[in-house]
Amino acid sequence: MVYRIAFETDTTTGRLFEKVLIAAIVLSVLVVIADSIPTLHAHWYFAFTLAEWVFTALFTLEYVLRIVCLRAPFRYARSFFGIVDLLALLPTYLALLFPAIHVLIDVRVLRLLRIFRVFKLTAYISEYQQLGHALAASRRKIAVFLASVVLIVVVLGSLMYVLEGPEHGFTSIPVSIYWAITTMTTVGYGDITPQSPLGRFVTALMMLLGWGTLAVPTGIVTSEIAFRQAREEEAGHPQAHGLATLHLSGCAACGEAHHLPEARHCHACGARLPRVAPSAK
Amino acid sequence: MVYRIAFETDTTTGRLFEKVLIAAIVLSVLVVIADSIPTLHAHWYFAFTLAEWVFTALFTLEYVLRIVCLRAPFRYARSFFGIVDLLALLPTYLALLFPAIHVLIDVRVLRLLRIFRVFKLTAYISEYQQLGHALAASRRKIAVFLASVVLIVVVLGSLMYVLEGPEHGFTSIPVSIYWAITTMTTVGYGDITPQSPLGRFVTALMMLLGWGTLAVPTGIVTSEIAFRQAREEEAGHPQAHGLATLHLSGCAACGEAHHLPEARHCHACGARLPRVAPSAK
Amino acid sequence: MVYRIAFETDTTTGRLFEKVLIAAIVLSVLVVIADSIPTLHAHWYFAFTLAEWVFTALFTLEYVLRIVCLRAPFRYARSFFGIVDLLALLPTYLALLFPAIHVLIDVRVLRLLRIFRVFKLTAYISEYQQLGHALAASRRKIAVFLASVVLIVVVLGSLMYVLEGPEHGFTSIPVSIYWAITTMTTVGYGDITPQSPLGRFVTALMMLLGWGTLAVPTGIVTSEIAFRQAREEEAGHPQAHGLATLHLSGCAACGEAHHLPEARHCHACGARLPRVAPSAK
Amino acid sequence: MVYRIAFETDTTTGRLFEKVLIAAIVLSVLVVIADSIPTLHAHWYFAFTLAEWVFTALFTLEYVLRIVCLRAPFRYARSFFGIVDLLALLPTYLALLFPAIHVLIDVRVLRLLRIFRVFKLTAYISEYQQLGHALAASRRKIAVFLASVVLIVVVLGSLMYVLEGPEHGFTSIPVSIYWAITTMTTVGYGDITPQSPLGRFVTALMMLLGWGTLAVPTGIVTSEIAFRQAREEEAGHPQAHGLATLHLSGCAACGEAHHLPEARHCHACGARLPRVAPSAK
Repeated sequence: MVYRIAFETDTTTGRLFEKVLIAAIVLSVLVVIADSIPTLHAHWYFAFTLAEWVFTALFTLEYVLRIVCLRAPFRYARSFFGIVDLLALLPTYLALLFPAIHVLIDVRVLRLLRIFRVFKLTAYISEYQQLGHALAASRRKIAVFLASVVLIVVVLGSLMYVLEGPEHGFTSIPVSIYWAITTMTTVGYGDITPQSPLGRFVTALMMLLGWGTLAVPTGIVTSEIAFRQAREEEAGHPQAHGLATLHLSGCAACGEAHHLPEARHCHACGARLPRVAPSAK
Repeated sequence: MVYRIAFETDTTTGRLFEKVLIAAIVLSVLVVIADSIPTLHAHWYFAFTLAEWVFTALFTLEYVLRIVCLRAPFRYARSFFGIVDLLALLPTYLALLFPAIHVLIDVRVLRLLRIFRVFKLTAYISEYQQLGHALAASRRKIAVFLASVVLIVVVLGSLMYVLEGPEHGFTSIPVSIYWAITTMTTVGYGDITPQSPLGRFVTALMMLLGWGTLAVPTGIVTSEIAFRQAREEEAGHPQAHGLATLHLSGCAACGEAHHLPEARHCHACGARLPRVAPSAK
Repeated sequence: MVYRIAFETDTTTGRLFEKVLIAAIVLSVLVVIADSIPTLHAHWYFAFTLAEWVFTALFTLEYVLRIVCLRAPFRYARSFFGIVDLLALLPTYLALLFPAIHVLIDVRVLRLLRIFRVFKLTAYISEYQQLGHALAASRRKIAVFLASVVLIVVVLGSLMYVLEGPEHGFTSIPVSIYWAITTMTTVGYGDITPQSPLGRFVTALMMLLGWGTLAVPTGIVTSEIAFRQAREEEAGHPQAHGLATLHLSGCAACGEAHHLPEARHCHACGARLPRVAPSAK
Repeated sequence: MVYRIAFETDTTTGRLFEKVLIAAIVLSVLVVIADSIPTLHAHWYFAFTLAEWVFTALFTLEYVLRIVCLRAPFRYARSFFGIVDLLALLPTYLALLFPAIHVLIDVRVLRLLRIFRVFKLTAYISEYQQLGHALAASRRKIAVFLASVVLIVVVLGSLMYVLEGPEHGFTSIPVSIYWAITTMTTVGYGDITPQSPLGRFVTALMMLLGWGTLAVPTGIVTSEIAFRQAREEEAGHPQAHGLATLHLSGCAACGEAHHLPEARHCHACGARLPRVAPSAK
């Protein structure tokens, strides 16, 4: 019964529960962010602490419920979202026990990742998949590209360390590599800048090189997206159907939420899936 | 009669009125901009104030005329351009009554938006539509992309707040998020920069990630534009015809300016449209 | 005879003259650049001044020769390259007469533009044309895009002037607009940065907007280039033929260098063109 | 026998040797990088010096082995990788002999280039080739583009030198050109920024120009990659086959590693190639 409320989003109660949960996650993250602002921290210390404990209690309850309700709790606990759920709780308790690790308490913003779980990605899954496929198809090209960038950045960073030296801010090769990445990606903070004529000449070449290199990942991704789009147009918009290929209720055993509509068994643990309730229509 | 001059751009007088209005809008915005420069403000204070009141009087007259001439003045007053027209007048009067809100007087630059109304977009409408369609078609992809960027920026901003802390300029999580956006978009002001080795390492990863991420919106928009262009080529340039699909005179009742050439009634208020004068040819 | 040497690049002497001229232009620009470096200016003052007068004398001789040899000297003198040729000479003479305008002497770097004339673009004309066509075809789209950018930048610049004010470096609306362009183009100097929380929030939105907007011109140009390339592939590489459509010797009357191979009269002044010498093969 | 171990990666020993070599190269580069950090240099001076000599000895041994084993050692010594292998050794010995050139010792990071040799590019060669072809096909377009950028940057840099002058940091034309490249590539360090209103106006135009220009190389590369991808799709994925077209063992005479699988003679020196051992499967 509790399970149906918490995990089957097809029922009215389940949908309400989901909305409350999303609101709680967003609110708890906003509290963490607001608490980091010194003036707000000073004025609202008590309110923030109270809100933090209320949210932690709520999320703990939800975590325990999931563990209790699911028939394969270990599979859930070891899954990606199970670990995220745990990481969203632990810092508050740990900070109580060991005040020294207080700085790590902001790991709580990882709660934001839980939003993806609650959404169950039903609405946007096909867009994610499309981008994901585009990136996956270009995986090797991107790896080659990144390897080249790392090589160029290490070699040019070391060169600038030799040319400019510690007196111009290039205090070590790692710092020079950091500066080279700053320059090649066109971020250009300006905290470290070349001062010698030769260093500036090499920097000018690096910037032009970075400009050209910028075109390569754009070209790869664009070409991949355009190609995928053209194929989908030909095939009569399978993307539109893609939106319907999600099972609307999760697995009762391990909590896995993504299944094909015709699926009868969970693809993760093999448990039998509940039938889709008519109220889901 | 007055209506015909002010709102029917097909007559010679109407076109002259339109040109005077565009000049007045551009001039009034230039006066606002010039007035903000301290040296010019000191030397030309009287001239700027005079010009401001002349323009405000002119725009007030135009606004009153529109309200009086149109048969459905409320519909106009509540429309987007009606509110822009009002916002272009109000600050001058309000600043006279309440000198304290003087800082808001620069809201007057919103007058620039009125230019779009006067142009009636006849010349560029098809280009706008094409870009608009390209963006609308990619709406969901862009939403997914923005959601991912917000998530990445909040998580990485919080991480950098923990790693660098207030002593290196990361005074709170919102400031760190602002810095993370500065870095990921490759703007890189350099007012806040990481100082610790670990912070610089994470920053280097963020910059490379931002570099790659930059490719995604470019890919989406390019693919969409290329696809649209290819379809138009096949269909025999409907884009060219698109330029002719605008009714050249506005609705006498509510002032709505965009109608199909074959339209007999205003699509916004249903009032009968004037016939296109032969002088519009 | 002198004409044939200076303007007909098909003869051996003409080609040698051309190479000497390119070398002289590049050298004279390098002298201007080197002369601007304080230490070099102090040490090599005499040598630079001498070189400058030698180059000026050479270019003056060339200019006079052109005027004398051509049958329509006025047409040449008023053409784009005629004015560039004159601008490359005048500053040196004027600086002698009026030492006060010494700062304008660096207009001499415009001599670089002459290189394009000497090259006669024979080698790269088809690439230039292709890029030019791609840009021309997207002319209206680019105009719409630039108009939107100007509008956004003026409105957001004024908004930031209101939000941040002179105490944070936003001393006037033009300065704020300059800052807004710096931010939207992701250059981000960091000489002016928002300090107030609200200003930083608006800046973050501007940067994300600028990121997205960056995709639009890229999309337009890429789509145009890809489209052109696809058509050329189908049509059997007319680009390759494009390289041959240049008349290899100029018009004897006005100096215009670009003619179709089958042209019998100059398209600029109507004078009869010389026949292509067999040595041009 | 030694040859088989060091150069034939198809045998088990050969593969082990290769892995050890990659580890040694990466480790030696990490030691060079770590040695440049002042605090680590002070604490681990002895360990780093020892490691450096061990690696140098190892690489010297490998270099000598290659020279001895190959039947055409001169061809190897004069090849690109032969010179890289030598450059990876020399600085350590030279720094011992001439302590004054100690600053050049970081040339040792060039050892990273050796990784490409050891990998023999078997895994990524087709991706490299594809990117290489895309760039080679756009060679002329890129040359035209770079020439235009150089011209724009020299002319605008000189203009800004005249407009801003040495008192605002534009101390010479080369510095102004460096600044112009910084601005056009949207890096924007902020170490040199325009201060005069006219200079800022020109800068704003330059940034918008740079924004537009950025689209051109992206368009060229994207169009090239998309075109290549489309052709490969039609031709039935020759890219996939491309991965198999590498001979898995090098030439015994000159060490050249890239051969077609059906090759019987080395394409570089003509020596007979060893047959592929069954263990390579």
